[in-house]
Amino acid sequence: MQIGMIGLGRMGANMVRRLLHGGHQCVVFNRSPEAVKALSGEGAVGASSLADLVKKLERPRAIWMMLPGASVEPLIAGLVPHLGPGDILIDGGNSYYVDDIRIARELAARKIDYIDCGTSGGVMGLERGYCLMIGGPERAVQRLEPVFATLAPGAGDIPLTPGRKKPGGTAELGYLHCGPSGAGHFVKMVHNGIEYGLMAAYAEGIDILARANVGKREQSHDAETTPLRNPEEFQFDLDLRDIAELWRRGSVISSWLLDLTAVALTRDPTLAKFDGRVSDSGEGRWTIKAAIDEGVPVPVLSTALYSRFSSRGEAQFADKLLSAMRFEFGGHIEKPDGK
Amino acid sequence: MQIGMIGLGRMGANMVRRLLHGGHQCVVFNRSPEAVKALSGEGAVGASSLADLVKKLERPRAIWMMLPGASVEPLIAGLVPHLGPGDILIDGGNSYYVDDIRIARELAARKIDYIDCGTSGGVMGLERGYCLMIGGPERAVQRLEPVFATLAPGAGDIPLTPGRKKPGGTAELGYLHCGPSGAGHFVKMVHNGIEYGLMAAYAEGIDILARANVGKREQSHDAETTPLRNPEEFQFDLDLRDIAELWRRGSVISSWLLDLTAVALTRDPTLAKFDGRVSDSGEGRWTIKAAIDEGVPVPVLSTALYSRFSSRGEAQFADKLLSAMRFEFGGHIEKPDGK
Amino acid sequence: MQIGMIGLGRMGANMVRRLLHGGHQCVVFNRSPEAVKALSGEGAVGASSLADLVKKLERPRAIWMMLPGASVEPLIAGLVPHLGPGDILIDGGNSYYVDDIRIARELAARKIDYIDCGTSGGVMGLERGYCLMIGGPERAVQRLEPVFATLAPGAGDIPLTPGRKKPGGTAELGYLHCGPSGAGHFVKMVHNGIEYGLMAAYAEGIDILARANVGKREQSHDAETTPLRNPEEFQFDLDLRDIAELWRRGSVISSWLLDLTAVALTRDPTLAKFDGRVSDSGEGRWTIKAAIDEGVPVPVLSTALYSRFSSRGEAQFADKLLSAMRFEFGGHIEKPDGK
Amino acid sequence: MQIGMIGLGRMGANMVRRLLHGGHQCVVFNRSPEAVKALSGEGAVGASSLADLVKKLERPRAIWMMLPGASVEPLIAGLVPHLGPGDILIDGGNSYYVDDIRIARELAARKIDYIDCGTSGGVMGLERGYCLMIGGPERAVQRLEPVFATLAPGAGDIPLTPGRKKPGGTAELGYLHCGPSGAGHFVKMVHNGIEYGLMAAYAEGIDILARANVGKREQSHDAETTPLRNPEEFQFDLDLRDIAELWRRGSVISSWLLDLTAVALTRDPTLAKFDGRVSDSGEGRWTIKAAIDEGVPVPVLSTALYSRFSSRGEAQFADKLLSAMRFEFGGHIEKPDGK
Repeated sequence: MQIGMIGLGRMGANMVRRLLHGGHQCVVFNRSPEAVKALSGEGAVGASSLADLVKKLERPRAIWMMLPGASVEPLIAGLVPHLGPGDILIDGGNSYYVDDIRIARELAARKIDYIDCGTSGGVMGLERGYCLMIGGPERAVQRLEPVFATLAPGAGDIPLTPGRKKPGGTAELGYLHCGPSGAGHFVKMVHNGIEYGLMAAYAEGIDILARANVGKREQSHDAETTPLRNPEEFQFDLDLRDIAELWRRGSVISSWLLDLTAVALTRDPTLAKFDGRVSDSGEGRWTIKAAIDEGVPVPVLSTALYSRFSSRGEAQFADKLLSAMRFEFGGHIEKPDGK
Repeated sequence: MQIGMIGLGRMGANMVRRLLHGGHQCVVFNRSPEAVKALSGEGAVGASSLADLVKKLERPRAIWMMLPGASVEPLIAGLVPHLGPGDILIDGGNSYYVDDIRIARELAARKIDYIDCGTSGGVMGLERGYCLMIGGPERAVQRLEPVFATLAPGAGDIPLTPGRKKPGGTAELGYLHCGPSGAGHFVKMVHNGIEYGLMAAYAEGIDILARANVGKREQSHDAETTPLRNPEEFQFDLDLRDIAELWRRGSVISSWLLDLTAVALTRDPTLAKFDGRVSDSGEGRWTIKAAIDEGVPVPVLSTALYSRFSSRGEAQFADKLLSAMRFEFGGHIEKPDGK
Repeated sequence: MQIGMIGLGRMGANMVRRLLHGGHQCVVFNRSPEAVKALSGEGAVGASSLADLVKKLERPRAIWMMLPGASVEPLIAGLVPHLGPGDILIDGGNSYYVDDIRIARELAARKIDYIDCGTSGGVMGLERGYCLMIGGPERAVQRLEPVFATLAPGAGDIPLTPGRKKPGGTAELGYLHCGPSGAGHFVKMVHNGIEYGLMAAYAEGIDILARANVGKREQSHDAETTPLRNPEEFQFDLDLRDIAELWRRGSVISSWLLDLTAVALTRDPTLAKFDGRVSDSGEGRWTIKAAIDEGVPVPVLSTALYSRFSSRGEAQFADKLLSAMRFEFGGHIEKPDGK
Repeated sequence: MQIGMIGLGRMGANMVRRLLHGGHQCVVFNRSPEAVKALSGEGAVGASSLADLVKKLERPRAIWMMLPGASVEPLIAGLVPHLGPGDILIDGGNSYYVDDIRIARELAARKIDYIDCGTSGGVMGLERGYCLMIGGPERAVQRLEPVFATLAPGAGDIPLTPGRKKPGGTAELGYLHCGPSGAGHFVKMVHNGIEYGLMAAYAEGIDILARANVGKREQSHDAETTPLRNPEEFQFDLDLRDIAELWRRGSVISSWLLDLTAVALTRDPTLAKFDGRVSDSGEGRWTIKAAIDEGVPVPVLSTALYSRFSSRGEAQFADKLLSAMRFEFGGHIEKPDGK
């Protein structure tokens, strides 16, 4: 089918490619024209403006937006005057599901259908396909089924979960209509919250491996420092590349994130090109807020988020305050290396 | 090659089967004779006692122990008088690596080689193969290579990590000599610590999905209760089976644990047969202790462990104390349902 | 001065008493008339309705509301038609500061001043005085100074912080104009967030003391259970009452909450009358949300909140899921007592 | 009575002063002679060596050691040859209670009594008195009662906990015989574990206050950054000095640590002289290990410890790994400022 795509960054451009390979017609627009030009060369129809994109689509139109969260609403405001009843807008980015609920209601008043679609898959999605978590009105989701089916991985060689009986369900193809407006981004939000927790679990554990030789180092001895009592228990020089590779094979903790960890460690086991200042991009935060509203305890997901905050130095004032208290009650002076 | 196996529980019995299929000769012993009898019928050589098992093995012997941690040392004490120089003992269970270091030293004095082998794979290991994390002296590990190679999954259809150059390495076959005595169980310990974190991340996140409809419930209003401010944001009735199935396909959080989660939810999305009293079996605890000795912050792995403690009611006195303080400063009476 | 008080529960009634003792005139109203009658007998002027209360106050009026958060806005809606320019409304409860900002703006349009006042002190406030955290327009706060000064503890015998130079500041008297609308409840919210953290720190620590004799108990031994490796290190029968009393005297962790802990443990060291289902009443949740918005890592405050959730069984589905995963990968059956 | 003191650092020297003021005779020794000389000028008897100190004490002797944990055992080894039956050794530092149990047993074989005494009070102890948590044999503890009574704060003006009936108990005087060998340092260990949790609760909360004006700052907008959705809710410039002072008066969270926080913030609300690299000195770590052995969930105390680790950059490899994973799955490049 024909679909418009606005936002041709890392994700958007690859999704267009996957759609083109799947035989769909894509009319594409991007703030900077280079990306439009590049995809035009690969078979997409380039648009020079929003108005041009809308004009090049047959009614009822379907327009997919693949943009940073903060850019979605301004774009919708610019698009809506050009759209009409029966058109469909899809937000495939990482927007807050609470906004979806409101926006869908506003657009419904103009008879425009709004779909929120959480998209997972990253840079490998072009090849592997994208996992799609979809919210919105049934009729619009059904109309877009060919597009979802192409973007998703399909059944591939991942066996069906034993006991699964629902023939015709789409979850096993890698896309799912999760519920009404907001449900898609809600499920994607939690997906990312889980992702933060999984990543932190690997990172913490592998850090324990990386320091399994601390018993070989010199220890300082003073009232501020606890010497390691059992240095003979920490004499292991472990090969993180081999261990990551090993765990991919038959272990309980094998996963796609572990595959990527193995890639990163194989490239450079010291990870020297990274500073360790870890971004967080919204869904992790919203996941915690939703959990708190629901009264669900989420200590793992929360501490994973806070580790990211701390990695960027966001705890520094609190840390200074701890040192200040220690100075007040014990006269403790900070050690230069804090050890 | 020929190998003895002591301990024919869930894990041990299946490992014998996999070894038999791989053409090895297995002499087997178990406290209760039924398991011995069963495996004898499948091609193993049954032994009627430890002494009998040792007698039936050619020298130098290799004996694999697959037992609960607390049973290993008593067994070794019983075995050692029957063993001689050049024999190899393998502990394939979940023992504490600190014990391995000591035991290996003690046995080395008798010229017996000791191997600590962390074994992951669970009930599916018979078919999938076991991921083996091995510690101990080089010569003993080399002698057992045929056994490790059979137990491990082998390369299978899991592609090699891109950039990996080490030809002849065994990590890609699913077993690895990680280092000297203790290294195998150390790596397995951290593996399980990570496992706890991963499991908790999924469990917390899926719980958020499970309660995404709290906005539909009645709220009570009093000074002890915060009403949900935004019930309209929590109106989703999500199908957990479908979502677990979906995430297995193309998402960033796909993993073997997620596959198992999908199995469990497909069988019964209410998980009614479980009470939610979650055991922890040693490695999770030791992982935290090792991290603390190394000075590695592990908030995710720790809170995952504590969630298991709490699931069994272990926090109850602390909770009572919180209620008691609230009563003292605010006259707050516990609500019958604690809400 | 003259002040109206609406809401004569635990907090409101005692605040009226403290104001009466301080020589102020109080016109009081409550949904149930018994409380009005009781305070009338102690010198307050009773009102039979909101309209009656408003009528009995001289203009410009000052009306203090002491109500559960959910009741504040309906009350304001009912009051406003009776009020006029220059009147002041004070919300002394635990409302969300975000609401204060909006309500203050709405009332300002009617020239009614709105003050948000966080009030700490609990059941002992009548005698000790209340710690007041105040937000709102300067002129209104100044007009109410006599009321704040009476409700607050005053300097008492708590020495001024050394180095403090600000003569005439009110913080040392126990009340403070923290900033514009919302600032009072914001500071109170964080105060309560800290309170949750402090309480949990004591509760967790004292629980460690309470179980310092676990080494005396029988241990079960199987693959699901880690035996305590060092029972000889956990043979202490500690007297929690004595230790709480001891720590009140010269230790770094002495505090009012510890005083209360000592009271509770002295009354009954087993805390038998509590079930350990701990309520949380809004500020703890909002504190975490504010921290996340600010990007401040708050693992301690968060886990303190989640412990309360868990104490009420809110983690149960997540816990069941953990048991379900363990069953799938390891065939682990839940132990009846979860140990 | 007469007592020897070895170790005249911050704590030891002030304890000697308090003992001298209390009429006791103190024979003092220190590695560096300046401290001995200084205290000799204040009435103590200086010793030039361990042997000299022992010689100057009448039998049966009582010798108090006030040293960093790692120095205690070497000192005991040097002292013991000079001691005889009936002598008492007191370890007043922060040793691991597990060592106490062993050392006490070893010394008992020589008929030397060993007392482990946890000492809280910090630099203010000279004036306020020290809170003493004592473990060891009854007869030795009784013999030292005059010393404990002088070092402890005494009843002072802290009222007895209501309901407390135990006349003659010493907890209300600020010292307590907690139990057999190890019990004193066990209670002190948990005391410090709680201290870490309390400190972190204040630090996290006050950090939220410190950033309550983030809504005034410019925001960057891209796919890596979640813009603050509600900047109007974070416009507060709060005076941390005033708020700390305020909370000391009538609030639920008043405490000695809060008093010290107020001192530190009053001296410099920016805490510019601290880097925020926070030491941890043993008890916090041992507390977590004890909790894990007991199966007590301690998420608050653990995350407080880990925050200290992280403050010293100990999480850096784990953080790099997170960034590396994000690069692999999403092509995310670290932002220079990590935001």
